[in-house]
Amino acid sequence: MGSKSDWPTMKHACEILDQFNVSYDKHVISAHRMPKEMYDFAQAAEEKGTKVIIAGAGMAAHLPGMTAANTVIPVIGVPGQTKALGGMDSLLSIVQMPTGIPVATTAIGNAGASNAALLALEILGISDEKIRQQLKDYRQKMHDEAKESSAELD
Amino acid sequence: MGSKSDWPTMKHACEILDQFNVSYDKHVISAHRMPKEMYDFAQAAEEKGTKVIIAGAGMAAHLPGMTAANTVIPVIGVPGQTKALGGMDSLLSIVQMPTGIPVATTAIGNAGASNAALLALEILGISDEKIRQQLKDYRQKMHDEAKESSAELD
Amino acid sequence: MGSKSDWPTMKHACEILDQFNVSYDKHVISAHRMPKEMYDFAQAAEEKGTKVIIAGAGMAAHLPGMTAANTVIPVIGVPGQTKALGGMDSLLSIVQMPTGIPVATTAIGNAGASNAALLALEILGISDEKIRQQLKDYRQKMHDEAKESSAELD
Amino acid sequence: MGSKSDWPTMKHACEILDQFNVSYDKHVISAHRMPKEMYDFAQAAEEKGTKVIIAGAGMAAHLPGMTAANTVIPVIGVPGQTKALGGMDSLLSIVQMPTGIPVATTAIGNAGASNAALLALEILGISDEKIRQQLKDYRQKMHDEAKESSAELD
Amino acid sequence: MGSKSDWPTMKHACEILDQFNVSYDKHVISAHRMPKEMYDFAQAAEEKGTKVIIAGAGMAAHLPGMTAANTVIPVIGVPGQTKALGGMDSLLSIVQMPTGIPVATTAIGNAGASNAALLALEILGISDEKIRQQLKDYRQKMHDEAKESSAELD
Amino acid sequence: MGSKSDWPTMKHACEILDQFNVSYDKHVISAHRMPKEMYDFAQAAEEKGTKVIIAGAGMAAHLPGMTAANTVIPVIGVPGQTKALGGMDSLLSIVQMPTGIPVATTAIGNAGASNAALLALEILGISDEKIRQQLKDYRQKMHDEAKESSAELD
Amino acid sequence: MGSKSDWPTMKHACEILDQFNVSYDKHVISAHRMPKEMYDFAQAAEEKGTKVIIAGAGMAAHLPGMTAANTVIPVIGVPGQTKALGGMDSLLSIVQMPTGIPVATTAIGNAGASNAALLALEILGISDEKIRQQLKDYRQKMHDEAKESSAELD
Amino acid sequence: MGSKSDWPTMKHACEILDQFNVSYDKHVISAHRMPKEMYDFAQAAEEKGTKVIIAGAGMAAHLPGMTAANTVIPVIGVPGQTKALGGMDSLLSIVQMPTGIPVATTAIGNAGASNAALLALEILGISDEKIRQQLKDYRQKMHDEAKESSAELD
Repeated sequence: MGSKSDWPTMKHACEILDQFNVSYDKHVISAHRMPKEMYDFAQAAEEKGTKVIIAGAGMAAHLPGMTAANTVIPVIGVPGQTKALGGMDSLLSIVQMPTGIPVATTAIGNAGASNAALLALEILGISDEKIRQQLKDYRQKMHDEAKESSAELD
Repeated sequence: MGSKSDWPTMKHACEILDQFNVSYDKHVISAHRMPKEMYDFAQAAEEKGTKVIIAGAGMAAHLPGMTAANTVIPVIGVPGQTKALGGMDSLLSIVQMPTGIPVATTAIGNAGASNAALLALEILGISDEKIRQQLKDYRQKMHDEAKESSAELD
Repeated sequence: MGSKSDWPTMKHACEILDQFNVSYDKHVISAHRMPKEMYDFAQAAEEKGTKVIIAGAGMAAHLPGMTAANTVIPVIGVPGQTKALGGMDSLLSIVQMPTGIPVATTAIGNAGASNAALLALEILGISDEKIRQQLKDYRQKMHDEAKESSAELD
Repeated sequence: MGSKSDWPTMKHACEILDQFNVSYDKHVISAHRMPKEMYDFAQAAEEKGTKVIIAGAGMAAHLPGMTAANTVIPVIGVPGQTKALGGMDSLLSIVQMPTGIPVATTAIGNAGASNAALLALEILGISDEKIRQQLKDYRQKMHDEAKESSAELD
Repeated sequence: MGSKSDWPTMKHACEILDQFNVSYDKHVISAHRMPKEMYDFAQAAEEKGTKVIIAGAGMAAHLPGMTAANTVIPVIGVPGQTKALGGMDSLLSIVQMPTGIPVATTAIGNAGASNAALLALEILGISDEKIRQQLKDYRQKMHDEAKESSAELD
Repeated sequence: MGSKSDWPTMKHACEILDQFNVSYDKHVISAHRMPKEMYDFAQAAEEKGTKVIIAGAGMAAHLPGMTAANTVIPVIGVPGQTKALGGMDSLLSIVQMPTGIPVATTAIGNAGASNAALLALEILGISDEKIRQQLKDYRQKMHDEAKESSAELD
Repeated sequence: MGSKSDWPTMKHACEILDQFNVSYDKHVISAHRMPKEMYDFAQAAEEKGTKVIIAGAGMAAHLPGMTAANTVIPVIGVPGQTKALGGMDSLLSIVQMPTGIPVATTAIGNAGASNAALLALEILGISDEKIRQQLKDYRQKMHDEAKESSAELD
Repeated sequence: MGSKSDWPTMKHACEILDQFNVSYDKHVISAHRMPKEMYDFAQAAEEKGTKVIIAGAGMAAHLPGMTAANTVIPVIGVPGQTKALGGMDSLLSIVQMPTGIPVATTAIGNAGASNAALLALEILGISDEKIRQQLKDYRQKMHDEAKESSAELD
């Protein structure tokens, strides 16, 4: 994530990954304050065996796109909600990448952080039957909870 | 894609995949006009061995999210540019997925379609060394072309 | 409604219907978490004698449009207010339906939920003189209250 | 419609109604230039046996809401596309009706006009089995055309 | 004003008028709930000797434009701030009037209400030397207060 | 107007004034390029007997507000349509004036220019019976034309 | 700054300048309430030896652009966050300056105020080695804090 | 500039600099396609004696902010106009920089490119009397041309 202030959002990603028992590293790497570390991190990711990178940042959010520019590992971007513009600034800074360097963008804020983790798991699930099954169980649980909440309405 | 009118955009994805010699199927499956086919397509994708789905649609673009709701295979969404609102409607309809069902969203229009293909290739590249190398070559070529265009300025 | 979190909004629709003594069913049916139920619900609605469906949802709100895609019964969509973008995401996801499948969209949030119920009643009122009269009485009451509030200003 | 300049949009509604052999009247009634006629039209609609009103207008589009304020017949609003703001002005002027007076809003521009007619037909179809069947046939045709267009891609 | 809920905003207009000892009537006249009264009010204004009308309303705010459509007296429109969209809906519904019927629009919310009164006073000041002088005094006072606030910074 | 490039828009104001035989001066006075002239113009307007000022400008349009800041004569602002943002930049720069200095804002572009002239005429009409009658005739003509255009539809 | 209410934002600029021991004057100079002072201030700045001007204002924020129009000293504009539109109005009023008069615009609100000061320091740093070194130290400190915050996550 | 496609915009900056006989280098350096060159360029700029950097880019425009993150030389950012969103994406990606790394942002498109050059000249003019005089002459010429265009109106 681009700043410690992104943690209340990005922890929703960690909670999903914890629930799935999938290991991960978490870092504050600011594209603007730590450009060299960001560059090195992205460059080193492949060699370290990283499979997917989730990058969350707000305002003129350059971390996801610049990380993606320095690796061919898939990068998922989570736009932070912002005080002035709600997160429209973060969203456009992340999703509107020009041709050549994709960032897999999810929704603004907490929902986007959770979904970034689920998307990473779906990507891992392509070649990992166990994760794929966990995802199906997770979906079933969401489904059941939604259904139950319907019964509770009455 | 959700409609034949998405083809001029979505063909940019196909061109990238052709360039990488990666095989794919292409379909018009309208979430609204062919809801049953959409449902069946998404449900069957896993069994057919599909690894990644790219879904492009415009306006109130439900195809990417509804496809994602029916499979645990990663779904990449491409927002179509629109006449009235430029594609802001497509973008928000695709990227703002609530918690639980992620769609990996790329930029509005042609850039997004090309990047959707490149993102799919990055995902495949996690476990396919050849594709990963092709991606590096592609990046090198983009890099060299950008550099050359700089020389041409003078 | 697409989620239990839509209830504080959607209950405004129920309150109007209760006031008019018009019977209705209420459900949480998530387009994304319960796609099959959503599909079945929409398909079955006509046979069950349902006359109008009100669907409220937020963010990338696919429930109204996808319900409409599976029935020829009129579907009224209520865009939920959202934390990041105020509900502009919900509104565009619901109202910008492409040619072929209409969703009768009302305002974002509580006003939209109340108006969805009133619109449903207007639709029923076409062939039900009693409801039509109730609507006229309701309008008269609103009118009188607005007029009284003017007197209270002084 | 609010102005003759809305005709290129609103004729898409007429084409659908013609296709369904459903009779209708068409008028230019400007909320701003012909406020008395607008008022009288809306007031008289019920007595004339009008079942649904479709009102299309652009910019600060008051016709749909003001018509709705003067009748309990369902009013469908079609936001016109506009040069400066794409139709966001028309959309918000129509859809954001405060509590009490609903307008069933469809998409901006041509798609919205077609869908307004289809929505009107769905409303009529509640008590008219023939129209309901026509709608199912129409959907089937849309479905088949979409499916065919998929085959043509290859 | 269109609703009693506009009073906390519109009272800022009254406070200015009170300060200038200019007499006025204040009413809640809802364009949607009291269309006939609105129509009659606007039609009668000229005969009653009304010189300027200030109309404040929120969401799909039709009151200013519809009042203007029924009189040739100048109408000033104040867009109400709204929960979902901040007042962008009110602003566009009021300011984007099509050719023929102008509404003199001021800022969203309290500032707009104060300025509506000041604009009305400027209009009256064209032929009323006393009001014009009061406006100059008011400006001088604002000027002095702003200047003093600068000194207070240190 | 702020620039010669505003003329194709602002001439619509002149055409209305010409039609009403109301005399006016027209100037290019750029708030940014001719700040002193702008200041002098606004300061001198009252003494010259100017009754209303119409100021049209685009992008970060400061002319209307800065003119208003230098006179107590009513200032009408016309937001120019812009290539990048459609005129949303002009509109917000003109209408969102803070408390104390009002600008009577009309719609973006040509419609706004025509309406600025009509608003000026309404303001003059308060104490000029002839102009008021001309306005009524103009409205009647608009009304008749709109009505005729309705007949032409068939 | 344009108003005392801008102080909670603009003090972030002062805090940075204090930290760097760079002297500055701070004033409330309202473009709209104190146009003459604004004009005089901008005109006099060069003679007084002012090197950079930072101007913060909200809503239809004319202070930065109008100051820039009256001097060839670089002007940095800080858009204030606003209640109704989040600061989009301030941003567009400041950044969208037409050709000829630039305003160096920073982000909406507190971040923009801090960055305005840092930008001013960068400008001074071009010919002041000491400030340039201070900026490098400041960056190093930001870098170290960001890095530490990463360690604290675990 | 971030891509050769930015040239038709950025050449407006070059034209101004040519007019002022100020020497400059121009490069295509894509933040995403040439991240290492971008990093090296920014890092080397100070040593090379570069005084100001102008960076123009479109869509998710990271070049200005990332360049700024790698140098303490002032960086001016020019948001490119874009097909889908008019340049709102470029603008927010450039101007909304978080605390610590400023980018001096100008208007979207051609006006912004010209103004970026003028801003750079203003910055150089702080310690270069000749450039300052040239700027005054330039302003005088703009002033005279605007004034003449006023005379041509008649």
